[in-house]
Amino acid sequence: MPETFISTLQLRLREFAQARDWEKFHSPKNLVMALTVEAAELQEIFQWLNESQAAALDAIQRERVAEEMADVLLYLCRLADVVKIDLQQAALAKLQRNAEKYPADAVRGSAAKYSDY
Amino acid sequence: MPETFISTLQLRLREFAQARDWEKFHSPKNLVMALTVEAAELQEIFQWLNESQAAALDAIQRERVAEEMADVLLYLCRLADVVKIDLQQAALAKLQRNAEKYPADAVRGSAAKYSDY
Amino acid sequence: MPETFISTLQLRLREFAQARDWEKFHSPKNLVMALTVEAAELQEIFQWLNESQAAALDAIQRERVAEEMADVLLYLCRLADVVKIDLQQAALAKLQRNAEKYPADAVRGSAAKYSDY
Amino acid sequence: MPETFISTLQLRLREFAQARDWEKFHSPKNLVMALTVEAAELQEIFQWLNESQAAALDAIQRERVAEEMADVLLYLCRLADVVKIDLQQAALAKLQRNAEKYPADAVRGSAAKYSDY
Repeated sequence: MPETFISTLQLRLREFAQARDWEKFHSPKNLVMALTVEAAELQEIFQWLNESQAAALDAIQRERVAEEMADVLLYLCRLADVVKIDLQQAALAKLQRNAEKYPADAVRGSAAKYSDY
Repeated sequence: MPETFISTLQLRLREFAQARDWEKFHSPKNLVMALTVEAAELQEIFQWLNESQAAALDAIQRERVAEEMADVLLYLCRLADVVKIDLQQAALAKLQRNAEKYPADAVRGSAAKYSDY
Repeated sequence: MPETFISTLQLRLREFAQARDWEKFHSPKNLVMALTVEAAELQEIFQWLNESQAAALDAIQRERVAEEMADVLLYLCRLADVVKIDLQQAALAKLQRNAEKYPADAVRGSAAKYSDY
Repeated sequence: MPETFISTLQLRLREFAQARDWEKFHSPKNLVMALTVEAAELQEIFQWLNESQAAALDAIQRERVAEEMADVLLYLCRLADVVKIDLQQAALAKLQRNAEKYPADAVRGSAAKYSDY
């Protein structure tokens, strides 16, 4: 398999955990809990903003957003490594399923059809 | 900027939303809400499993896990695109900060130091 | 201690779990995971709505919202029972702390002071 | 309707928001986001603990748990007030549905039947 950004992150996270004897903490349940917590910390930045404010973050907010998004990505990659899921393949497969589930012609302009993608 | 997996996903998600006239739904607040919801849907698969069960998922569980992890990655990439955060750079910067914050020699074997990485 | 609505719910949830031999699933970690998942399921109902739609839920949406809010309350009460936290006392103590932390005269009309309550 | 603990909390939260001119922040979407964030903050306390540690919280952890549980309850009550859902009635209705959905005789001792309650 060619080296990818995700596999590079996973290797570095694995070495990071090994070097600190932290692998014992990285059970699937613990990692998924940490992932949800990081997503919520990202959400916290936005919770009291109105849409205009959320679309015009200042430099300090942007730095916090970047850091929390990084945390989400790192835990997601670490969890995928621990449970041996190919995240890249899973994402491409999901894009494909979404394209089949929501044909552009059928759903365009129809808010009623909107649920998720 | 060289094309990366994340930028490829972001392009496809952008085109997907444009083709369906769904960009109006993809405000930062809405996307961060969807991201947290997907993380929780991933968590739901693990919530009643004990650690042994969580470490030995069957094929059906693995497929669900892969799909929910994909959803988290897709919303994370989409949000990063909308708020114009470079997710790849943010992840590398966070790895660097973690390495400085948790020097391996200082924290090895010390559960008390463990909080996050 | 006088019987309260919360203690009544807790008694019924305890008997419910005992009658089904489900107490083994109700560890603090599992219950807190379930609580977060239920909060996210509630959130899911609102994620693609704009503020006007969110303030004018139809009957079907209201029923779903009521059920998810009930799930959050039930898991919260169950968790409090399992970890032996007096939820009623905790809530009153927090109201008191909030009143001290955010004096009305100091924060009125100042969005900048707003973070949480 | 007789005054209940929940309605008492709701009255105090309403007055609290009014006195600070914070009602404008308390849209359903914002409140549900805050609720999920508080649930995740509660979860964060437990995420790296093993089950033994989670069942034997020390005094400092218990205080944090109590405060985060209080936050969840306060936002839940505030949201119910804003969207005009009777939380007490919703909880009782859900208990009733659970009793019908999971008859004790049918599910006892059967982990396979376990999903949620």
